[in-house]
Order: sequence, then structure tokens, then C-alpha cells
Amino acid sequence: MKKNYFGIDVGGTFVKGAIVTEDGKIVVKDKIPTEYAKGGDAVVKNIGDLCRNLAKKAGLEISDITAIGMGVPGMIDGEAGVVVATNNLGWKNYPIAKKLEADVGLPVKIANDANAAALGEMKFGYGGIYKNIILLTLGTGVGGGIIIDGKIVEGNRGAGAELGHEVIELGGELCTCGRRGCLEAYASATAIIRDTKRAMQSHPESKLWEIGSLDAVNGKTAFDYCDSDVYAKEIVDSYIKHLACGIINYANIFRPEAIILGGGVCAQGDALITPLKKIVGEEIFGKDLGPQVEILTAKLENDAGSLGAAALVI
Amino acid sequence: MKKNYFGIDVGGTFVKGAIVTEDGKIVVKDKIPTEYAKGGDAVVKNIGDLCRNLAKKAGLEISDITAIGMGVPGMIDGEAGVVVATNNLGWKNYPIAKKLEADVGLPVKIANDANAAALGEMKFGYGGIYKNIILLTLGTGVGGGIIIDGKIVEGNRGAGAELGHEVIELGGELCTCGRRGCLEAYASATAIIRDTKRAMQSHPESKLWEIGSLDAVNGKTAFDYCDSDVYAKEIVDSYIKHLACGIINYANIFRPEAIILGGGVCAQGDALITPLKKIVGEEIFGKDLGPQVEILTAKLENDAGSLGAAALVI
Repeated sequence: MKKNYFGIDVGGTFVKGAIVTEDGKIVVKDKIPTEYAKGGDAVVKNIGDLCRNLAKKAGLEISDITAIGMGVPGMIDGEAGVVVATNNLGWKNYPIAKKLEADVGLPVKIANDANAAALGEMKFGYGGIYKNIILLTLGTGVGGGIIIDGKIVEGNRGAGAELGHEVIELGGELCTCGRRGCLEAYASATAIIRDTKRAMQSHPESKLWEIGSLDAVNGKTAFDYCDSDVYAKEIVDSYIKHLACGIINYANIFRPEAIILGGGVCAQGDALITPLKKIVGEEIFGKDLGPQVEILTAKLENDAGSLGAAALVI
Repeated sequence: MKKNYFGIDVGGTFVKGAIVTEDGKIVVKDKIPTEYAKGGDAVVKNIGDLCRNLAKKAGLEISDITAIGMGVPGMIDGEAGVVVATNNLGWKNYPIAKKLEADVGLPVKIANDANAAALGEMKFGYGGIYKNIILLTLGTGVGGGIIIDGKIVEGNRGAGAELGHEVIELGGELCTCGRRGCLEAYASATAIIRDTKRAMQSHPESKLWEIGSLDAVNGKTAFDYCDSDVYAKEIVDSYIKHLACGIINYANIFRPEAIILGGGVCAQGDALITPLKKIVGEEIFGKDLGPQVEILTAKLENDAGSLGAAALVI
């Protein structure tokens, strides 16, 4: 019989969880409100309930499960099992792994959720064919994970892998971290929405106004009008130029086998990946002297959180 | 009796070598012309002769030595023992480790010279107190090495750790790698010399002209006049701002225990390190929520090459 694992993804509103087989298949999934305002111990109790609910749903005992992997947003010290700091949940130095072990009675391994997602893409999304990858998630912010030799690189006390927070344009756009010119300030969905609104405000003649109002702008808008509106094309070109810059930086720093892009913007598919590949090929250090870096899109989509978390213990 | 090792540092003109004890002390050192134009096999023969000379000088037999560690400039596949590509020596896919093993009769481990230097600083310069460091060498170019969990991170086929080639100012100064705005184009000695000459050409009234001519400019000039000339101060401030940007990027990406700066510019000591520490403290991701990153100067100086090479096998 295949071994089973809990994959738990802690979010600000809900904790999502799944029972995952050793080959990365989801048996059952469920969720429960996080209730983080009640404090760490209450959240741990909720996660314990979620685990018990999942086991029941699958017709299993807790003792039929091998271990719990859990992804948590923020600065996570995976080795110590401690949440060092997390804006979303308001905790500091909370020993969540030990607490959950006591509640459920299973070994618990935790990691930053983006780091866990990177491991999940390596193990399950791409079936282990790469052992050295960088995951960049292009969402509200830009997050990511570093996998070297099949293992997460999280930095001292889990404070590393802040891949959205490398400055690529000194003195440029203000970033949420307080610096100016970070990759996140150019390659996030938030950034492309900002640039789309700015273009509309500066160019009343732009076809972008067909969407009705500034409030209707989303991360897709500029891409949708890219072929029919010169201002939309400028936004997309600038987005790709900045994202390519960040990707090449990571290619030069890590020379991984693959850089995998996740997040909503990736729905653009080839319209995004093809020009990125071209720029990376032209500008990577040493050009064709070194090995190629694949530019790919993430595969796990909606279940990335639970599968990434489960990957921590599989 | 302590074990002894060969530490070999291959340069474009000379191969420098030393016999190093297991605790990082140099017993004897020597050098031999590289003669790289004669091809790989001739260079291997020269390195073999250097090893035999070193043993003789120390009154030892080759069999008294445990192994050879060797640093080579360029793209070095340490796992395979192969020089993938090196501009300085003109080799491609040359299996230098196997060849030298055959010549000398000892196991050989190779790495990129900057990567080896990073390992040397960790093991011998700082006596192993840090296991996770980034070395940035500020010389003609900007090189570096990444040490995670006490091991070199060299990237696929040794093509990673090109730490001078992260763009920090998109579209900025032209870099030797073909991109614009790389850290190397701002933080190398070459960059500060360029900026000093430019300032002198634009400002005939600058005190920098006291040095006599543009040809007399070196990497120290702007620092020497920093307190007495406003243009020199501008150059130094800009240098520090750009270097700090690169350092903070690496702090956010790796959150190492320490970032160690090597190369000639480090002779500036506190004039360089104090303002860098201040900017890093103000701008690092999460400010004081996460662990501190020490900003230090390299300790191994002239013997960094041989000691770093020896560190590969000690």
C-alpha cells in the first residue's frame, strides 16, 4: 500500500489541506478557517481538526498517515520548525511544528509556502527531472523558491529566497519592501496594473479605455490589447524586459537547470515565454558556452500549496 | 603527523602552488609559468612539475601528500573535473582533473578560482565560524563565490555564481558580459577608475588633477581625495550606493551569515565597510525581523588562491 501524507497550506483566511500519496496524487482535500486573530495555539487546533477531518473523509486513521508537511507564509525557519515572523498571521518566533506534532501525533516539517511550492514543482510538477530550479511566482507580489540538489535553500532562519526583492533598476519604482526598483515593483500583477492605469490616464485615446474604467483594469488587460493598441504593447514590452532582466540575473547567479514561472500572469503562455526565452538566450552570461537554462511555466496550479507542503515530507 | 595537501592556483601567466597543512598553514610555496598557449597537456605537465618541486622543497615525497585542490579561472565543472570554458586559457571541455591525476598520481579536485577562494575564506580566513557566506571580489571585474552549508554552489556545469553579472541598473553602464547595468560595471576597480577619469575630464577645477594626469588614476584615487574634493566624494558615494545595492540583493536572495568582500578596494577598510553596513541595515528585507548579515573583508589576501584551492580537498 502506498504511503499517505498530509499537505497543509496555511493562508491568512483559510488553511487548505490534502492527503497526498507518495507519488503526489491527492486522495482528499478540505479547508478550515485559519482564525489567526485567535493566536497560534487556536490555529494549531484548527489545523489539527483539519487533519482529523481529512483522515475521516478518506476513511483512514491518523496512524495511517506518515507525516505532515506544511507551508506557511513569512520567514520560516524550517530546520527549527519555527515561524520567525509573518505579516499575514501576526506571529513571531512561534514553534508551530512542535505544537502541531503534539496536537496530531505525527512528525511535522514546515517551510515558507513559496519555498514549498518550488519543491512541489520539482518533485510533482516536473516529476523530479530537474534537481536545481528557481521558482518565480508572479502574483500580487513576486515570490519564489530556490532548489539546489533537490533541497530548499531558505537562508539563515528562513529569511532568504526573497526573490522579488532584488533591485534591477536602482532608484526606480517604489517597492512594498521600502527599496526602489525591486523586481517585484516591475514583474508583479500589481505592477502591470499600475502601469496599465498610468497609460490610460496619460492617453485618453488608448483602446485600453474600451474596458470602461480604470477600476476594470487587471493583470490581463495590457496583454489583451497588446496587438491592437500601441500603449498596451509598450506596457507588455516593458513588463517582459524587466522580468527577463530578473530571470537572467537568477540564471547567472544560480545557473539552474530550469527557471519556472508561476502565478496568474503565466496564463499568457507563449506570448510571455517566447520573448523571455529569446532575451535570456541573447544575454545570459557566456551565451552558448554554458548549459542552457529552461524557461518553463508551473504545472501544479490550484493544488500547488498542498502538494508543495506534502513534498516537504515525501 | 598532520596531513598535507597541494593547493594549486592556475592563472593566465603563472601557476602558483603551495603545500598546505590540514589546518590551513602554508608549508612551502612556489610558482611556474603556465604556458597555456602550448595547450592543456603542456600546462598539466607544468603543474605536475610544480607539485614535484614543492614536495622536494618541503623534503617530502609525493606519497606524503593526500590530495590536490586546484582553482582554475572560468566555467569549471567541479563534479566532473572538467574545464568547460575559460577565456584566460582558451580551453573547452578539457578534463584537467583526470589528466593531472595521471601525471602526479594523487586525487585531484577542481573548482572555479573565485568559488575556491570563497571556500578558503570560510574554512581558513574565518576559521569555519560561518557555514553560509557570499564572497564578492572587487577587482578588475567583480567575481564571487556562494557557500551554502559549507559547500560551494557552482551551478549547472559550474556556470553559476557569476555574482558580478546581476543587473542592478537596467540600461546602465555597459558591462564586459554584453549586458548593461551589471554590478561589475559599477563595483569593480575598472568602474571606479572610469568614473574618476570622467569626473576629471568634466571638472578641470577638481583637486583630483593633483595626481598629474588621467593615466595616473587608479582604484584608490577617488578614495584618497574623498575628504578634500567634492567630485571625488560624489564618485565614492556612487560607488558605495551601487555596491550596497548588490550586497542587499545577495542578502535578500541568500540571507547568508556573512557577505565577505575581497579585492583591492577593501584596503579602504572602514571608509568602505561602515557606510555599507548602514545602508544594508536600513534596506535589507524585513529590516530587523530577520537575522543580521555580517559585512566583512576577506582575510586570506595574497595566499587566497592556494589556500582556497587546498580547501577543496581539506
